Amino acid sequence: MSSQPPHAAVLIPGPIEFDDAVLQSMGHYSESHVGPAFVAAFGETLTMTRQLFQSTDPSAQPFIVSGSGTLGWDMIGANLIEKGDSALVLNTGYFSNGFADCLKVYGADVTFVNAPVGSRPQLPEIQAALKGKNYKIITVTHVDTSTGVLSELKNLSRMVQETSPETLIIVDGVCSVACEEIAFDEWGLDAVVTASQKAIGCPAGLSISYFSGKAIETVKSRKTPVASYFANLLNWMPIMQNYENKKPSYFATPSPQLVRALNTALKQALSTPLSERFAKHKEVSDKVKEAVSDLGLKQVAGNVEDQAHGMTAIYLPDSVKATELLPILSKAGVVFAGGIHKEIQPKYIRFGHMGVSVMDPNRPEIDNAIAALKAGLTQLGYLV
Amino acid sequence: MSSQPPHAAVLIPGPIEFDDAVLQSMGHYSESHVGPAFVAAFGETLTMTRQLFQSTDPSAQPFIVSGSGTLGWDMIGANLIEKGDSALVLNTGYFSNGFADCLKVYGADVTFVNAPVGSRPQLPEIQAALKGKNYKIITVTHVDTSTGVLSELKNLSRMVQETSPETLIIVDGVCSVACEEIAFDEWGLDAVVTASQKAIGCPAGLSISYFSGKAIETVKSRKTPVASYFANLLNWMPIMQNYENKKPSYFATPSPQLVRALNTALKQALSTPLSERFAKHKEVSDKVKEAVSDLGLKQVAGNVEDQAHGMTAIYLPDSVKATELLPILSKAGVVFAGGIHKEIQPKYIRFGHMGVSVMDPNRPEIDNAIAALKAGLTQLGYLV
Repeated sequence: MSSQPPHAAVLIPGPIEFDDAVLQSMGHYSESHVGPAFVAAFGETLTMTRQLFQSTDPSAQPFIVSGSGTLGWDMIGANLIEKGDSALVLNTGYFSNGFADCLKVYGADVTFVNAPVGSRPQLPEIQAALKGKNYKIITVTHVDTSTGVLSELKNLSRMVQETSPETLIIVDGVCSVACEEIAFDEWGLDAVVTASQKAIGCPAGLSISYFSGKAIETVKSRKTPVASYFANLLNWMPIMQNYENKKPSYFATPSPQLVRALNTALKQALSTPLSERFAKHKEVSDKVKEAVSDLGLKQVAGNVEDQAHGMTAIYLPDSVKATELLPILSKAGVVFAGGIHKEIQPKYIRFGHMGVSVMDPNRPEIDNAIAALKAGLTQLGYLV
Repeated sequence: MSSQPPHAAVLIPGPIEFDDAVLQSMGHYSESHVGPAFVAAFGETLTMTRQLFQSTDPSAQPFIVSGSGTLGWDMIGANLIEKGDSALVLNTGYFSNGFADCLKVYGADVTFVNAPVGSRPQLPEIQAALKGKNYKIITVTHVDTSTGVLSELKNLSRMVQETSPETLIIVDGVCSVACEEIAFDEWGLDAVVTASQKAIGCPAGLSISYFSGKAIETVKSRKTPVASYFANLLNWMPIMQNYENKKPSYFATPSPQLVRALNTALKQALSTPLSERFAKHKEVSDKVKEAVSDLGLKQVAGNVEDQAHGMTAIYLPDSVKATELLPILSKAGVVFAGGIHKEIQPKYIRFGHMGVSVMDPNRPEIDNAIAALKAGLTQLGYLV
């Protein structure tokens, strides 16, 4: 039984429901950010971040910084882009566009590989783009939270390495880390940026990122200074290295409470093999998607291989308005999200199924949500 | 009685000890960042931020963003500085220098008005500097956490307005907001940047800032784009305005738990007149400083009028090493901070007395800390 007060289950694609122990860590009594107990906890958290990315490469570097997932985009733009550098952005929706907007602020010359809403750019067209120009970075939104489209990373990264080996492979993993497989070293990724409040299962407030040695060297060998102070990886790197070596260090004050909560969440996530965690997310996702199909509804992500496993974006029947359905679901104790992709915004809703709601067998909220969705559609006259 | 587990009292100049209710809010169950309950709480928190700055000017704008206090510097640099703009930095120590470093990243041409360690630049020399050049901004570190030096804002801002009315007056209030008086409108300030974990009494993780209408207009009328994505005030402004008007809005995911905790902390801070809060901090500060003096010790901030009321930086006797004293205090359940100003780093310690430790009459930790300091100095042979 949860020790939390009764509340509507938050099944949006982040923030997600939290485990009791994680929320208890959020209320940790005050401690010095440079005291030995917190330094040890922060250091351990950084080491667990390596495990989360299935990485053992000592030249790779985790960063845990107060901020939101969006700050991760600035970490890429401010550090890896110099004015005029070319960036190839694989566009799967709202969040790919946002990432591109951020890169442009730092002077990137952005080229898109676009795809129709609900699908993703395919390897041949991406390869053609890479052959046509030298790109410093290629960015891919692993799961675009606006559409539930999953991008494929393994074959993509192999193709990029063969076609344009200098190009850095950058992943927006905000809605994928801890629910979709990421083998950072094996796939040869150069950066993954994510946030605490999605499948990792820690409340919002932390930007979590992971950079390859090659990416770090790129920052160090810039011709112009890094274009930010707070998002400058070189300001944070000695701090992260010291904390991981259990030495106090200061650049900007971390949040002991959020880091304690992340520590608890990562311990839980790593308590079983990651392969089992990913398989469980796929199993529950399959159940959700089957239920959606049984209700006669279509997903925004059309092809099975393009469908994320931590969320489902669902087209509504023509007769049902999101603005009517969502309040009915909320009254039934289930919080879904509305649409956010501007081309289809009023036509769909988003159902997040990540983290503790998926992994804890005592949590009934996924099944309850499926039942509530059915009941809501019945109430609105779509189902009889 | 506190419901927190027994722990050493954190009496560093931030993070500080937290009230039980604030820590309980940190463990708030999950909620959607765009759901009505959270939107109402965030909106109310923004309105309370106006009250904290004693501001009723509707053109002024509060910002509450996931990040640390340092992010506030970037908000100033990225938004108010264009390449080559002149900034006059009043230098009172480590944090004034850090602020200047940040401004330089965004292209500022920085001029310092320096002062010997433990004092602050004086009005005549500041005025002379303002007369010699057109400065777009002047920055003042209200309390420099590295030295405990308090800067005077009221006469300073009047002088700046008379001498150089176009110059924007920017205050680093990280270690002053909620323990030193700030009358934002009355004094004609243009921006104050602060953080959650000091006198405001909420755990670290939020950058809190307040900008005048004049400052916002300056951002809007830039010749070049704002030099950051995450720290771009124009990205955040409609979001903050919508939340304050109780309308959901999205740019980057806020932290519901941290905002709930800030809401609780601000309600507590505003439950008595701010004048009483400032007077209580002065009363306790006077007690601490008298005890320090009675022990035969000197403060880093030499003159009474330059001494902060939320912290005390204390020179150690020649015979006592900080590296010996601090662990003894820690064993006695009192966490002080070491020195951080590079010219005097090993010679002094810092004692924070802000927030609940000062305001809650049931909290014995300030008196305990004074006693522990005396006992520690005795143990190390300084006092007999």
